[in-house]
Amino acid sequence: MGGVSIKAGIVGGAGYTGGELLRLLLNHPNAEVAFVHSNSQAGKPVYATHTDLLGDTDLHFADVLEQDVDVLFLCVGHGAAKQFLEAQQLQPSIKIIDLSQDFRWNESLRGEVVNSCGRDFVYGLPELQREAIQQAQHIANPGCFATAIQLALLPLAQQNLLHDEVHVSGITGSTGAGQSLSATSHYSWRSGNISNYKVLGHQHLHEIRRTLQGMQQQELPSINFVPYRGPFTRGILCTSYTRCSLSQAEAEELYHSYYSSHPFVIISGSTPDLKQVVNTNKCLLHLQQEGEYLVITSMIDNLLKGASGQAVQNMNLLFGLEEQAGLKLKASAF
Amino acid sequence: MGGVSIKAGIVGGAGYTGGELLRLLLNHPNAEVAFVHSNSQAGKPVYATHTDLLGDTDLHFADVLEQDVDVLFLCVGHGAAKQFLEAQQLQPSIKIIDLSQDFRWNESLRGEVVNSCGRDFVYGLPELQREAIQQAQHIANPGCFATAIQLALLPLAQQNLLHDEVHVSGITGSTGAGQSLSATSHYSWRSGNISNYKVLGHQHLHEIRRTLQGMQQQELPSINFVPYRGPFTRGILCTSYTRCSLSQAEAEELYHSYYSSHPFVIISGSTPDLKQVVNTNKCLLHLQQEGEYLVITSMIDNLLKGASGQAVQNMNLLFGLEEQAGLKLKASAF
Amino acid sequence: MGGVSIKAGIVGGAGYTGGELLRLLLNHPNAEVAFVHSNSQAGKPVYATHTDLLGDTDLHFADVLEQDVDVLFLCVGHGAAKQFLEAQQLQPSIKIIDLSQDFRWNESLRGEVVNSCGRDFVYGLPELQREAIQQAQHIANPGCFATAIQLALLPLAQQNLLHDEVHVSGITGSTGAGQSLSATSHYSWRSGNISNYKVLGHQHLHEIRRTLQGMQQQELPSINFVPYRGPFTRGILCTSYTRCSLSQAEAEELYHSYYSSHPFVIISGSTPDLKQVVNTNKCLLHLQQEGEYLVITSMIDNLLKGASGQAVQNMNLLFGLEEQAGLKLKASAF
Amino acid sequence: MGGVSIKAGIVGGAGYTGGELLRLLLNHPNAEVAFVHSNSQAGKPVYATHTDLLGDTDLHFADVLEQDVDVLFLCVGHGAAKQFLEAQQLQPSIKIIDLSQDFRWNESLRGEVVNSCGRDFVYGLPELQREAIQQAQHIANPGCFATAIQLALLPLAQQNLLHDEVHVSGITGSTGAGQSLSATSHYSWRSGNISNYKVLGHQHLHEIRRTLQGMQQQELPSINFVPYRGPFTRGILCTSYTRCSLSQAEAEELYHSYYSSHPFVIISGSTPDLKQVVNTNKCLLHLQQEGEYLVITSMIDNLLKGASGQAVQNMNLLFGLEEQAGLKLKASAF
Repeated sequence: MGGVSIKAGIVGGAGYTGGELLRLLLNHPNAEVAFVHSNSQAGKPVYATHTDLLGDTDLHFADVLEQDVDVLFLCVGHGAAKQFLEAQQLQPSIKIIDLSQDFRWNESLRGEVVNSCGRDFVYGLPELQREAIQQAQHIANPGCFATAIQLALLPLAQQNLLHDEVHVSGITGSTGAGQSLSATSHYSWRSGNISNYKVLGHQHLHEIRRTLQGMQQQELPSINFVPYRGPFTRGILCTSYTRCSLSQAEAEELYHSYYSSHPFVIISGSTPDLKQVVNTNKCLLHLQQEGEYLVITSMIDNLLKGASGQAVQNMNLLFGLEEQAGLKLKASAF
Repeated sequence: MGGVSIKAGIVGGAGYTGGELLRLLLNHPNAEVAFVHSNSQAGKPVYATHTDLLGDTDLHFADVLEQDVDVLFLCVGHGAAKQFLEAQQLQPSIKIIDLSQDFRWNESLRGEVVNSCGRDFVYGLPELQREAIQQAQHIANPGCFATAIQLALLPLAQQNLLHDEVHVSGITGSTGAGQSLSATSHYSWRSGNISNYKVLGHQHLHEIRRTLQGMQQQELPSINFVPYRGPFTRGILCTSYTRCSLSQAEAEELYHSYYSSHPFVIISGSTPDLKQVVNTNKCLLHLQQEGEYLVITSMIDNLLKGASGQAVQNMNLLFGLEEQAGLKLKASAF
Repeated sequence: MGGVSIKAGIVGGAGYTGGELLRLLLNHPNAEVAFVHSNSQAGKPVYATHTDLLGDTDLHFADVLEQDVDVLFLCVGHGAAKQFLEAQQLQPSIKIIDLSQDFRWNESLRGEVVNSCGRDFVYGLPELQREAIQQAQHIANPGCFATAIQLALLPLAQQNLLHDEVHVSGITGSTGAGQSLSATSHYSWRSGNISNYKVLGHQHLHEIRRTLQGMQQQELPSINFVPYRGPFTRGILCTSYTRCSLSQAEAEELYHSYYSSHPFVIISGSTPDLKQVVNTNKCLLHLQQEGEYLVITSMIDNLLKGASGQAVQNMNLLFGLEEQAGLKLKASAF
Repeated sequence: MGGVSIKAGIVGGAGYTGGELLRLLLNHPNAEVAFVHSNSQAGKPVYATHTDLLGDTDLHFADVLEQDVDVLFLCVGHGAAKQFLEAQQLQPSIKIIDLSQDFRWNESLRGEVVNSCGRDFVYGLPELQREAIQQAQHIANPGCFATAIQLALLPLAQQNLLHDEVHVSGITGSTGAGQSLSATSHYSWRSGNISNYKVLGHQHLHEIRRTLQGMQQQELPSINFVPYRGPFTRGILCTSYTRCSLSQAEAEELYHSYYSSHPFVIISGSTPDLKQVVNTNKCLLHLQQEGEYLVITSMIDNLLKGASGQAVQNMNLLFGLEEQAGLKLKASAF
């Protein structure tokens, strides 16, 4: 694969996921960034916005779209991805990886792919359907909470073991809310603070339910999710529990077996903490049998495995590259 | 009450709860600190340990116990309070407020008081049994998580409404773990980090269950509790939900009615956040009907309403002072 | 003084200093809040903005100014205070405490008071000129960095000891920049981050120089100030050093003597840290003779001794109340 | 260089710098970790200590030293490196990179190399003496503050421009103090806190002075350094200023010229902030002419360019690898 070089374009490159994608692609051994499109920052160097890239690249934000690319990453906001594809005439050969929720599975869709804007989109969770992704042309990249919760529950759904209510609580860092300024992103407010939001009504439940229901035959029980905003910047940690008859050993065997060929999912035998995965593309899982419940702790970096890292993982699969190419990242650890 | 001055002694004054108690009592209009006992710091000024008290007091830690006090606060560790009372000959007239778990309700005890070390201890949650506290001689001060969760559920238990499983997640700041140095209290580890612990097995569940079962006739359902360590110093925020047929309006009416005469419990009509209560003795509650569930968010400062503030509230009740005396604290807010 | 009750009005009550003033005045034994004016929030309860005040007051923001007050606090932005006084017809009997920089000493002013808007303003640093404040009708409350740096240097200036360059570095928390949203107040940016700004050119140098030059006969040397933004919400810590022939003992004697009658300035014999003063009105000083230099560390809570707390201290002086009334605050400590 | 693979051993691998070195070497294209020695953790997997490495390596800590390595990194504490070399019989062919201060330039040494334990040690600051490093056998890796301050001042010293006092303030994150538990590393203490320490007396001044005096002919003026502990984990930011007659343009030209061939030193035209370099091996510099002063802001990640990253950079130079090999790291950015 040494000689392969994928030409990538980024649309909406001035936001957090666009910046993170740049950080990855600039160091990727088999990819190069052909252009970074931004309406708001066109003409300025990308390091004026993503200031850590000073010294790494002289790329400037563009206001026109080049068609001579192999893959296009859409890093625009929810709703804007659909608008973009409706408005643009793209070469049909260009593969698309969309990081918004516009083409993800949702409650109203029942098929295996989402057909929209004249394209079939495959839901891009490699640990669910790597083969489908490898064959796909257009990818809908999963949501961050959705990734952490699905990876916690996939093996149970596959074994038809989700029969009783699932209870999930999860905490997200501030980058999950993007770079727009808001009351809950103000440092003076968020520092040392905790709050919950959208309790039992988070929008990612749609794609989570769609995935899990697609895997198991019996009807999916309710999934109750309490999301929290936490005083940190990167990462998501979720705790899920449900009644389950598996012993500790059986549960561990099931999860090890399910994820044995998936390099980014790691099962920890000891109690983990979020910073083990921060600044990596890993998902760390921990299993605990407590009374009649199985407790699954899952954690990811929301900007990597929860967004741009998973997008690169999908790119690697789309183009037959090694799945971990460009994603062997040094954890920040502290 | 202007002329009343309660003479208070503190045992175990070099820890976090001892220091917080000093901060409160030094400013209390009807109390004075007679002595602060500490084995480890005896002879040194209290401001050498609680450095924010520099300029506020010249008290020194003592290694002998004065008997000429009206009330004794025990701020020693779990287990050490019982040992202390077994070893000491105290004047029977001295009232005792113990902040450890040694004399709290527990699973093995079924009566209304805990009799231990030759004394009857009343569980000191004023919003549960203010009258019993006013008549008591010895108080077992509740745990921090136990306070936050009980205050969320008391009105439901009183109305016999806890019939289905209760699911609770909660996040605590670092001061809850005290001042001893440990891996999870290291700044480099905890900053920006999240972890869960004692999932479905936290020790405070005993006192929570004992209280709630004592209030309602039907058998108490299981209470599933997921505790988290968060990257902040002060405060606890919990989210509890259970199936409940009350409408939003009925739930609010029930809680407003239950807490109408309790000045420290505030019901918020809008989504709250932890820093509304940090550095105060308040408990803030928020109610949300979601589908078949009632969701209750509750939050306290773990060192105040969850420990030393509640201890002073109990002292006020024991001595017939105004319940809020010395506890009208300026929130830090940021 | 038990019977005294000052009627206070607040203009610009929806900002950080306005909120902090409310937190203080609502608990002040000799003051009551007559009204809180806010253009942006008029008609809404103050707890809708300052959410920690929920349960403490039912005051609403007003859009008209009542004249039946004893003192008016101006908490509006720099420039807006002057505009306000030019536009309003206020009863001459109303005392004014302005928290902006509009009426502070500045480079262009040489007299002992600032005359502007038809009024004489006295610079409200009690540790510099308590008697002048007690006689004053209008107060210009000092800036936050200016307070921390002046309190570090006043005793030296009084003794004519500032003859060589003074070098100051200082770090401020995020509340110093107010509640407006900006790139440097975004949580994702500021968390774990450090930056300097206005190096050698901070605007508070004007009032610092004016004070110090007014105290000593010889010409004031240059004062070089490097300000930093730090990842915390409350507080300012400054380190100042200059060549000085005083021994350690002489320096300590000088500072103890200068501040002996000033209850909020505390001199620490051991190395201090910022959280000793957070959520208090104290200024903590530490002295260190190093080679030919005297090093002075000073620290305050920027919203209290650096803004609203000092404003209340000035109110106490204006009305002959005890200087510490309403300002014996529990430190948050953690 | 594709085929080159350096065999590296790590002594003292259970600490912060040892862990960071592992994170780098495990992903390095031209290196492999032969063994990781630790007295305290021998026999345990390295991921038991450096938990983010779970899934990356099955290496275990060893208690014996293998001699079949090309390079040995010493990550033990100050003093222990010297003891180690005195006690061990090492193959003379093994290159050594020591991260302690034991073999750095110090006040008592005047030569170009430090001869100790029968070996010549070259001070490993590549931007000072890359050629000497390339020829060396033993490297003394510079201190973290020393790196940040030297990189700020090297071009001035080279031009003989340090003639007037230099004033430096700098803030370090908690990982600079290592993983041992102490009062100032307790989360409850350090969160939201600031303190200074070793004011005007930091031990890194020795190596800074030695380097700078070695570069310029005139006598080096005094360097006054005020270090701070900040509430963050990674990074050092320093502000240095001294009287200098260079214009802004001349200063920028000088620095650009000095660092043009040094890939890790970046000169920023706009005001920088620490997180631009966190989790990278970069040093970011910013220049500002203010009145008669030149102000230089410099920042590094203390564990990377300030320790283990610089150690790998030195390894690359020792073995003729590309200087940036294994060090093109994704910034954490948030």
